[in-house]
Amino acid sequence: MAIKITGTGSYIPTSIEKNESFGQHHFLNADGSSLPHPNSVIIEKFKAITGIDERRYAFDHLTSSDLAFFAAEKAIADAKIDPEELDYIIMAHNFGDVKHNTIQTDVLPCLASRVKHSLRIKSSKCVAYDILFGCPGWIEGVIQANAFIKAGIAKKCLVIGSETLSRVVDKHDRDSMIYSDGAGATIVQETDEEGGILAHETGSFTYDEAYYLYFGSSNNKDLCADTRYLKMDGRKIYEFALNNVPLAMKTCLDKSGRDIKEVKKIFIHQANEKMDEAILKRFYKLYNTEIPEGIMPMSIQELGNSSVATIPTLFDLVRNNKLENHSLSKGDIIMFASVGGGMHINAIVYQY
Amino acid sequence: MAIKITGTGSYIPTSIEKNESFGQHHFLNADGSSLPHPNSVIIEKFKAITGIDERRYAFDHLTSSDLAFFAAEKAIADAKIDPEELDYIIMAHNFGDVKHNTIQTDVLPCLASRVKHSLRIKSSKCVAYDILFGCPGWIEGVIQANAFIKAGIAKKCLVIGSETLSRVVDKHDRDSMIYSDGAGATIVQETDEEGGILAHETGSFTYDEAYYLYFGSSNNKDLCADTRYLKMDGRKIYEFALNNVPLAMKTCLDKSGRDIKEVKKIFIHQANEKMDEAILKRFYKLYNTEIPEGIMPMSIQELGNSSVATIPTLFDLVRNNKLENHSLSKGDIIMFASVGGGMHINAIVYQY
Repeated sequence: MAIKITGTGSYIPTSIEKNESFGQHHFLNADGSSLPHPNSVIIEKFKAITGIDERRYAFDHLTSSDLAFFAAEKAIADAKIDPEELDYIIMAHNFGDVKHNTIQTDVLPCLASRVKHSLRIKSSKCVAYDILFGCPGWIEGVIQANAFIKAGIAKKCLVIGSETLSRVVDKHDRDSMIYSDGAGATIVQETDEEGGILAHETGSFTYDEAYYLYFGSSNNKDLCADTRYLKMDGRKIYEFALNNVPLAMKTCLDKSGRDIKEVKKIFIHQANEKMDEAILKRFYKLYNTEIPEGIMPMSIQELGNSSVATIPTLFDLVRNNKLENHSLSKGDIIMFASVGGGMHINAIVYQY
Repeated sequence: MAIKITGTGSYIPTSIEKNESFGQHHFLNADGSSLPHPNSVIIEKFKAITGIDERRYAFDHLTSSDLAFFAAEKAIADAKIDPEELDYIIMAHNFGDVKHNTIQTDVLPCLASRVKHSLRIKSSKCVAYDILFGCPGWIEGVIQANAFIKAGIAKKCLVIGSETLSRVVDKHDRDSMIYSDGAGATIVQETDEEGGILAHETGSFTYDEAYYLYFGSSNNKDLCADTRYLKMDGRKIYEFALNNVPLAMKTCLDKSGRDIKEVKKIFIHQANEKMDEAILKRFYKLYNTEIPEGIMPMSIQELGNSSVATIPTLFDLVRNNKLENHSLSKGDIIMFASVGGGMHINAIVYQY
């Protein structure tokens, strides 16, 4: 028996927001002071660090649960399962449904209930709940599905990551350029095949790190201080991720009993290109091994950081040969790894 | 091996809001029209249906995660465990942290991370996540803890339900009188004893029912239509609950192999006294059995409906002999059952 991902789907919003569109933004420091450089320089520097050229924003009339539904439909079709057979819909997000031009998070009902409603699933046996776990939410959803299957209370689970970060950004904060919208979905199920989920690892770092990502006021002190936005302490997160993600990945790989040289692809949460490259470097250094070419597919250049959606979207792209020079073959050992708000880190070693 | 609740704790806000305090509220119908009766009659009718005399509101400076922390501290002390040994903190809520006099839900970081931070737990092995599952969130958290223990990835879990519904009510809606603030916490762990969780059952009803509880505009049409509040279609929920909760409870009890006559206490989500009594009546009718006296402890009269917190709070009160004429003895068969936003229903049969 193996627990495998038998179907994937993603929804990539068609509306492209290029770096140039931030040219007229009035960026400010966190203390409200002006930046010493013109926007052209700020954007160039941003691009050099994050790798982001453009990102996607959902159409105004759509919310996160709509994106999730679109991705879910595709994953179900891909897995060729009857949605009525689903035992769980596990929906990872961070901000719920936020309507365009409003500031309230709407999570009543939970987004998994909305997706199930939209999928027109009749069976009440399909348990639909949301998990809040920062950007690593989709991986953690897969880990929970794995546990439910092992515990004998599920056979087929739909695990979704969906987010509309464009609705919660502070336009006066340079970091707003990082964030994107999107959704990725997967069917996780018990199969007769070999491989699947070989090992997983999760850590929650809250002693000093709980508030590295937080909900805070605008950099523009003229705006209402009560209205809050997605904020981060980028420097601390970078250092934290570099110190802890490679170790968690190593713990996970060692648990699986597989050799570093067997690993064919590593799908890391697309938060920042330079950070992901540094994580990869440190991970291979832990094994005193060279980084193989083409090990880490990247979509951040064109898709930005859509939080919980980056990994399932990227995996769906590679699985469907939609990312140049990347493909997967049956039996390949791959890894998923993520880090984000909470702060949480997790990883999965998986045989395709 | 049994999976048992080895510790409980609750935080009941000390600030009492009596029915009389709604005497000057300007209640309106959902369409904005005036009500035909004076507030004294409205309140009397409300009391007759729901059983609620008073409810509790958290102090202005506290949020849901603060309440959760207070309850968690007590549950940990009661279970006499080292918090560093916790494998999971599972936090059920519906609206996150909502600061007094603001309208935004703050769930970054997730509330479980905040509680873990406040508990000063250093171990990163303790995974802290939030579950959104309507009022049945705490029971579902216990079911997930049970699955993680069975799957071999956890031994000790802290499961919390916390909510500050006073922060999301529409003051122009009579239903606002139902809602309350509070938190309940429990330690769920693997033990060498007998009993514990014998069976559980969960259903998500979303085909027609997903939006019976929702986030909607004020009944006062002069207020900003974009600002939304906790809303419900009470009549539909009542009918739905009566038709489905007793059946789910029966499925669960039958799964456990125990006889209806063995059941000593039933802890039902305190949403509405009349509804809970009607559910109990139908449940016993399914077995053609008389309802034993004192089977259903109630705290709604004084504590109102604090969503995810009602059952763990009530259980904590009875366990500590703080609810008159109610007590528990080792070996007792008890049931937990809940229904709420999503719509979700769940139940657990448990040997104390």
